[in-house]
Amino acid sequence: MRSFIGRDILSLKDWERAEYFRVFEIADELAPVARNRSNCDLLSDKTLLTAFYQPSTRTRLATEAAMHRLGGHVLGFSDAKMTRAGDFYQESIKDTVHMLEYYGDVIAMRHHQQGAPHEAAKWASVPVINCGDGWGEHPTQVLTDLYTIWKERGTIDGLHFMCIGDMRMRTMHSIGYAMAQFDVEATLISPPEMSPTDEFKQELADLNLRFREVKTSAEAIADADVIYMEPVVQADYTKARVEVTEDKGITPAAYRVTRELLRDKAKPDCIILHSLPRMDELPTDVDHTRHARYWEEAFNGVVMRMALLSLILGAME
Amino acid sequence: MRSFIGRDILSLKDWERAEYFRVFEIADELAPVARNRSNCDLLSDKTLLTAFYQPSTRTRLATEAAMHRLGGHVLGFSDAKMTRAGDFYQESIKDTVHMLEYYGDVIAMRHHQQGAPHEAAKWASVPVINCGDGWGEHPTQVLTDLYTIWKERGTIDGLHFMCIGDMRMRTMHSIGYAMAQFDVEATLISPPEMSPTDEFKQELADLNLRFREVKTSAEAIADADVIYMEPVVQADYTKARVEVTEDKGITPAAYRVTRELLRDKAKPDCIILHSLPRMDELPTDVDHTRHARYWEEAFNGVVMRMALLSLILGAME
Amino acid sequence: MRSFIGRDILSLKDWERAEYFRVFEIADELAPVARNRSNCDLLSDKTLLTAFYQPSTRTRLATEAAMHRLGGHVLGFSDAKMTRAGDFYQESIKDTVHMLEYYGDVIAMRHHQQGAPHEAAKWASVPVINCGDGWGEHPTQVLTDLYTIWKERGTIDGLHFMCIGDMRMRTMHSIGYAMAQFDVEATLISPPEMSPTDEFKQELADLNLRFREVKTSAEAIADADVIYMEPVVQADYTKARVEVTEDKGITPAAYRVTRELLRDKAKPDCIILHSLPRMDELPTDVDHTRHARYWEEAFNGVVMRMALLSLILGAME
Repeated sequence: MRSFIGRDILSLKDWERAEYFRVFEIADELAPVARNRSNCDLLSDKTLLTAFYQPSTRTRLATEAAMHRLGGHVLGFSDAKMTRAGDFYQESIKDTVHMLEYYGDVIAMRHHQQGAPHEAAKWASVPVINCGDGWGEHPTQVLTDLYTIWKERGTIDGLHFMCIGDMRMRTMHSIGYAMAQFDVEATLISPPEMSPTDEFKQELADLNLRFREVKTSAEAIADADVIYMEPVVQADYTKARVEVTEDKGITPAAYRVTRELLRDKAKPDCIILHSLPRMDELPTDVDHTRHARYWEEAFNGVVMRMALLSLILGAME
Repeated sequence: MRSFIGRDILSLKDWERAEYFRVFEIADELAPVARNRSNCDLLSDKTLLTAFYQPSTRTRLATEAAMHRLGGHVLGFSDAKMTRAGDFYQESIKDTVHMLEYYGDVIAMRHHQQGAPHEAAKWASVPVINCGDGWGEHPTQVLTDLYTIWKERGTIDGLHFMCIGDMRMRTMHSIGYAMAQFDVEATLISPPEMSPTDEFKQELADLNLRFREVKTSAEAIADADVIYMEPVVQADYTKARVEVTEDKGITPAAYRVTRELLRDKAKPDCIILHSLPRMDELPTDVDHTRHARYWEEAFNGVVMRMALLSLILGAME
Repeated sequence: MRSFIGRDILSLKDWERAEYFRVFEIADELAPVARNRSNCDLLSDKTLLTAFYQPSTRTRLATEAAMHRLGGHVLGFSDAKMTRAGDFYQESIKDTVHMLEYYGDVIAMRHHQQGAPHEAAKWASVPVINCGDGWGEHPTQVLTDLYTIWKERGTIDGLHFMCIGDMRMRTMHSIGYAMAQFDVEATLISPPEMSPTDEFKQELADLNLRFREVKTSAEAIADADVIYMEPVVQADYTKARVEVTEDKGITPAAYRVTRELLRDKAKPDCIILHSLPRMDELPTDVDHTRHARYWEEAFNGVVMRMALLSLILGAME
């Protein structure tokens, strides 16, 4: 297995099966630190630089919280407006990175432009973590999700994933690549205008992922072991601030997972993941069912970033 | 006395007299750390999460500074715009809290919506500190103020408070509830449109607080041992950013405390508190009188938060 | 030499020659900490307060990164909009400082108003570092630059500086005062509307700096040992957010330093500094010449702030 020390986390496209399990093991080792609410000093001599060109709550704070749990230092910016890199000068990624690389020992970047973290990694002398790049990928979120599934179900192999939401979103790309490393089947559900691109479907086919597309959650839910959800609002990730262009009206039933649907059709041990925030595609009364695992997913968001930070900074191996 | 460990600090309505003194004692114990300008490591294994949906300087920074003085870690957001929790999704407090609770060991929240910290506390597995909730309360500021009075005057019992400013403001609510736990008298002064609500006056009466309302500072100042001031601008706390709707013109003399008024009428040992920022209700030449104690109040703002954080996180008891 | 302990860093106007070398020595001592990417604990018991009324990337993050490298704590605000100090109340510097001084042990301030850090220093019980004050000065940037020259060229004395860009900018003021403490010659190049003020030229003359003004980089480059560059966009530093009023079109050749110009006319050992961000006055293909030293300058930005922080907080002497 490739060493994790100094590695960029840009895409799950090139992750091998054993690497997922390695990361899960380290997450298991570090989880008690988070669970016991007691920061350790594993990375007390290291600094994390967060370069968020788009506002974010969960990803930025989960990554920063992980660094704090490991005793490390954190600095950065949380909005392109907070930095001259986002202003009139429209500074190139190269120029920006040749400053940021001296301010921290690892750079966590969110950018509205797909591939921006890859460009940053090309120039940086420190590892770069992709925290979401436009319509590209969101590897740390999906590693969190897979770890949650592995913890909650005891396995990933053998499960049937029902992925529902805007299939052009970055999490959907990353989960697609990741699923192909496991013995799983996938059912994809999205409004027609948010269906997976032909290019992405070809990639999944080339990776030998068994998947099908269906039109409604009702058709697919009976097969699902894992329901993997995203909203179906029309987001524009190319903007510095995510612009949601569709009105907030009720999500069509086809893309919702309701308590009734779960009661009538879901397998008893089916679990639901949602990276949140949500709209009405996942009504709040689902929270009180045994299927809901998105709070565990939120907790694991910190644990997974602890695992990744300590691996790439060489504190765990 | 109820234990402070794990306790939410939401309102002073239910604080008992002995609890104030307990907090003052802890503040006294920790004050040298701040005064000697040397962070200690009492909370070095803990993380504070600041969730400020409204910009704030004093309250946010004083709370964060306190955590740093105790050697702890800090992360969060300082503006609703910095977080997706404040955006299109209009995420519920419950959903937001079920993420924030994993990022820190205590949550300090300011929110434009009254009761938001209470709602957060309902769902959070960690203590929540109300750092100002709309027109609701501002308990940590008022604990700071009472501690300052206790330090500067040696007592709270027996003092006459002159509260002047917008009586609908959250600090006025908290000081009202707090005063009722001491043997004090209060005189309230505000423009008619900013007078205390009937409901609030009924609460004060039920708490057996001896108070009266008068029209001008000149009428009341001779009795005052403590002058407790707020501006009389018309603020709109229900907005994400406080909107001040009145123009910045001169504050009417009735709601001002000037050097001349102090010289002519105030008791020699009368002290003035103002949580700042100020407009012209408190002219800057008052700074050079012996009555001014608002800089001490500012210093105590850090000390009080040190006491509260170390108590609720169990580092002091 | 005056002690650095507790000293404000406001202007280079009063810096003596020996003080530059003292700072360079300390920077050399601390550089390995940054180079080895391992935070130390020299200032682990201290807190840095950053008060940035204008957004900044390099200066704020380099200063914060330095504090983290020294194991210290950091808090503050990175935009006037993030603080009530910048809002409706238009709080005075005095009032603001009598709060900030309790939140940290040193204040790093950027302000759109020239002299604001000096006013802050007048009231603060802790040292104040000027991180750029309107059209005033930018001492920590220029100390970084001089240290870079000293490291890269082994000397400052005997060098010829070609300063090119908007000569009214704060870095140009600080480098002007600094050059006068060394045996250097200076050539100044700027568009007519951005030429040095008469007052500034008189100051340089009074300091006995040998300088001349020429019209184009082509005329001066053959003499240059150090090319010190700034963009020639029209910035308005009096605004809370720097307003750039000129369009982004091509910088006139007279104010550019190109690969061709360097190849045809520059001394073989001439070095180029630019604090960045850049526009097209410094084309990116210059990066691949031996003259470029702006990435070293970026690295040294952290090292110099480490030196200054540890000196004024008494951790090095």
